[in-house]
Amino acid sequence: MSIQLTILGCHSATPRANAFPTSQYLEINNSHFLIDCGEGTQRQMRKYKVGFSKINHIFISHLHGDHFYGLVGLLSTYGILNREKELHIYGPKGIKEVTLLQLKTSQSHAKYQLIFHELTSKESELIFEDDKVSVRTIPLKHRVYTNGYLFKEKEKPRKLNMLNISGYPEIDKADYLNIKAGKDIVLSTGKVVSNAELTLPPKKALSFAFCSDTCYKPDIVPIIKDTDLLYHEATFLAEREDLAKKTKHSTTIEAAKIAKAANVKQLIIGHYSGRYKDISIFKKEAEEIFENTNLAEPGKIFNV
Amino acid sequence: MSIQLTILGCHSATPRANAFPTSQYLEINNSHFLIDCGEGTQRQMRKYKVGFSKINHIFISHLHGDHFYGLVGLLSTYGILNREKELHIYGPKGIKEVTLLQLKTSQSHAKYQLIFHELTSKESELIFEDDKVSVRTIPLKHRVYTNGYLFKEKEKPRKLNMLNISGYPEIDKADYLNIKAGKDIVLSTGKVVSNAELTLPPKKALSFAFCSDTCYKPDIVPIIKDTDLLYHEATFLAEREDLAKKTKHSTTIEAAKIAKAANVKQLIIGHYSGRYKDISIFKKEAEEIFENTNLAEPGKIFNV
Repeated sequence: MSIQLTILGCHSATPRANAFPTSQYLEINNSHFLIDCGEGTQRQMRKYKVGFSKINHIFISHLHGDHFYGLVGLLSTYGILNREKELHIYGPKGIKEVTLLQLKTSQSHAKYQLIFHELTSKESELIFEDDKVSVRTIPLKHRVYTNGYLFKEKEKPRKLNMLNISGYPEIDKADYLNIKAGKDIVLSTGKVVSNAELTLPPKKALSFAFCSDTCYKPDIVPIIKDTDLLYHEATFLAEREDLAKKTKHSTTIEAAKIAKAANVKQLIIGHYSGRYKDISIFKKEAEEIFENTNLAEPGKIFNV
Repeated sequence: MSIQLTILGCHSATPRANAFPTSQYLEINNSHFLIDCGEGTQRQMRKYKVGFSKINHIFISHLHGDHFYGLVGLLSTYGILNREKELHIYGPKGIKEVTLLQLKTSQSHAKYQLIFHELTSKESELIFEDDKVSVRTIPLKHRVYTNGYLFKEKEKPRKLNMLNISGYPEIDKADYLNIKAGKDIVLSTGKVVSNAELTLPPKKALSFAFCSDTCYKPDIVPIIKDTDLLYHEATFLAEREDLAKKTKHSTTIEAAKIAKAANVKQLIIGHYSGRYKDISIFKKEAEEIFENTNLAEPGKIFNV
């Protein structure tokens, strides 16, 4: 069970020489997801050696350009790379029409099937699940319909405690399936050996929450409670709370308050406004409220 | 009269860490044009310090993604920058619908007016003209409808030859307008002083031709005859003439043959296929046919 998050872009609004709009590549429990896809994302993926073919699911938070203008280029590149595996896109209603028109206009032909999952619900919903990971939406509040995403590893079954099992010669391999299934074992003497004694707890299932873009919205706290890694946007320093309110973004302090209230293990902030040259102050401000805060930067990798 | 061409991107197909799709910024006779706009163009404009506000006309050659996927991001950024001046887009039919849908979907609001000039003609046509520059299409042949563009400085009027004029005390300032208008002057003696004697030729009007993407198409030669600077795509080395034919691109040799037949002063080649790591061979091959050949590279500036 492990999480590796690669920041591909973490600045707001417009690409600049060394500032790239939002995109993150998430490896969780050996599954691979792309989250948001601002202009230039595929170039950043090449730069930071992200394997294109590993990604089968792309999650778009909202339809502002700095979060999805890079999508069509990536999809077109998948066509050029002769991708055959189907690709799932999750995002707000409207993403399908515009993406398909772009691909059609540019005569981008592909062998692979593109499957859109358009979102409209304002409640948190389960949108993806397999045997390794589940993904829920985190309804955010921005100038347009926006969702964050909560990625959770699936809890693995308890493991056989071979040391304890070897203390009961009567228990043999034929019983292992029952033990793994959580059952107690009744010995020939009638003694019940509890499943807890015969098994070890699995590694902790980890989780990652992506929250961007959003104003301060404390009602997401129950959804992201105890998350191991939280990315929460912090477009402005605290002094520009007025502008954060007006543009429906968050400040450093607001992001840190969410992290603290949700009791997450680690906070990453990003989506810095272009007005700031020195982003180190973002970290200092957030740390006052939530100590384990880190700054998103292009190419930076976070491991849990 | 001068030309300065900045290469923003010059690789084909897909953006990579150090490869950017086609885009060029042209300053000609103090006018400023953007030609093609692959993904990441606005980032390259920032990197190479191209003034966003100077551009009022954008020319798109064709609707393959590597030539226009960066357009919507740039237009959206103009909105964020509070642009008010109208902006003209020239490109194949279809560009308006897809661009407007993208801007609408991303709720990109702008104060400025966006004016589309959709092209459908297969003949060379004059599409822009003011007192400084004219722009004609160069019909190319690619897998989709494609135009190159020929940018020509307007010939300036002849200048007063003050040294010669001072030899005729009878000629005074009141005559200058007539002289500038090309008229001869009749002295009181009846002697005719020819306009050629009273004026100097203006600086030579320069021209730049942009030809991408296209297969080998010698019938463009009359249109670009004697051009000072020619950019012609050379996607493949000569050995892959088969692939050039199949994909309707050109080889180094074919680009150089066009330059030679058109008697241009200087050739720039680019749009290199991603299969080539070392592009220096492109120059060597083309130089065998046309000596004054240069390679397009990101950030490279060509002055005439």
